[in-house]
Amino acid sequence: MNIFKTADYIPHLSIDCVIFGYDEGQLKVLISKLKYGENLWGLPGGYIRLDEGIDQAAKRILKEHTNLRKIYLEQFRVFGGKDRISKSKYKSIIQKGLKSINSKVFNQSTIDWITNRFICIGYYALVDIKKTNPQPGFFEELLDWKNVNDLPSLTHDHNQIIQEGISALQRDIDSKLIGFNLLGDEFTMKELQLLYEAIYNKNFPMNNFQKKILSLNVLERLEKKYTGGQHKAPFLYRFKNC
Amino acid sequence: MNIFKTADYIPHLSIDCVIFGYDEGQLKVLISKLKYGENLWGLPGGYIRLDEGIDQAAKRILKEHTNLRKIYLEQFRVFGGKDRISKSKYKSIIQKGLKSINSKVFNQSTIDWITNRFICIGYYALVDIKKTNPQPGFFEELLDWKNVNDLPSLTHDHNQIIQEGISALQRDIDSKLIGFNLLGDEFTMKELQLLYEAIYNKNFPMNNFQKKILSLNVLERLEKKYTGGQHKAPFLYRFKNC
Repeated sequence: MNIFKTADYIPHLSIDCVIFGYDEGQLKVLISKLKYGENLWGLPGGYIRLDEGIDQAAKRILKEHTNLRKIYLEQFRVFGGKDRISKSKYKSIIQKGLKSINSKVFNQSTIDWITNRFICIGYYALVDIKKTNPQPGFFEELLDWKNVNDLPSLTHDHNQIIQEGISALQRDIDSKLIGFNLLGDEFTMKELQLLYEAIYNKNFPMNNFQKKILSLNVLERLEKKYTGGQHKAPFLYRFKNC
Repeated sequence: MNIFKTADYIPHLSIDCVIFGYDEGQLKVLISKLKYGENLWGLPGGYIRLDEGIDQAAKRILKEHTNLRKIYLEQFRVFGGKDRISKSKYKSIIQKGLKSINSKVFNQSTIDWITNRFICIGYYALVDIKKTNPQPGFFEELLDWKNVNDLPSLTHDHNQIIQEGISALQRDIDSKLIGFNLLGDEFTMKELQLLYEAIYNKNFPMNNFQKKILSLNVLERLEKKYTGGQHKAPFLYRFKNC
């Protein structure tokens, strides 16, 4: 096990990741059950090494939690209110919790470092749930996919970070054509529409949606999906940039 | 004069401000000529106090540089590549320069702090140039408004930060209706169009522009601009949220 040395990291600055997946018509986010604190959940996150770019740090943190190397990710906002963490509440939970995990690693100076004020850079990531193999980190008991509309109350301001992440995804999905990261390589128009509906949390009329998406000229039409019953089978599409 | 004490600030983290103004049909940005280094220009910026939220810090830094209290501002991106500052080049300039400004304030440990690796949170601000009274800060000889299309080569990655700030402004100006911050309270359709053209650096056909803007239903039409020659006088508008 690598010993966590605070001197290797930039103090007061963390990265938290809103990892989106899409499954069974639902937009989901990967959250961690933390080892310290009873039923305490939060976003997967970490710190930035002194010699590491922030994007590089985000990729490393994502790799640690999902075991995926190539992930679409975007930084979307910094969370830096001076009272974003309730220090008094949080410090006692962490202090107790970390010591119970490993009192050798988490000596008092490490705990002081971790419970200092932190400014957090929020990244969102888009992954294919089927390819993801969630890996609990050192502070985590387990990771779980939750529907974005059915989240527990998370630690710190992590519920707000997820909401801002969803807004950023809604803002970006048309202009950056990143939706395919959440789907398999090939999909029907209906599947694509269901993805958009899950992201925007509203329904779109089918004809309008199809017309709008096709007018973007980014999809390639493939064979029909099924060999039997041709007349009813929908076309498959894939993104041209794939 | 306040002594600058590094212990009061968060290390490794700075704020740089892209302050946009609009004048004579041109989108302009306020840049600083720095005291150290020969003909060295950069963005107005500063550090975050340990007990200060990041938005609060950005407002203070903007107030220090423009003497304006109420300013429209948005954080838009973090610049945190590990090599964004050429340390070897920059350190010698700063080291020499700061000592020449005030060798008492800038002792070696302060200079080491300032020339450490920094991750920068970029904010853009929109101001009315006529109401602005630029104030050089401690590190600055003077401040000047420059056309965004005619900028000198700036220190660090500040040219890139300005380009990203322009992209963010282009992205936000329709959805957030923030254009009026760059204009006086009342303006003609032509003046508004010229502002948009300056921001996007391209021309829009007049009829299309007017139709699009009016369809947003955010403008209130006022009296005509001139009392003489009524038939040729354009209408004045103002934003409804004003």
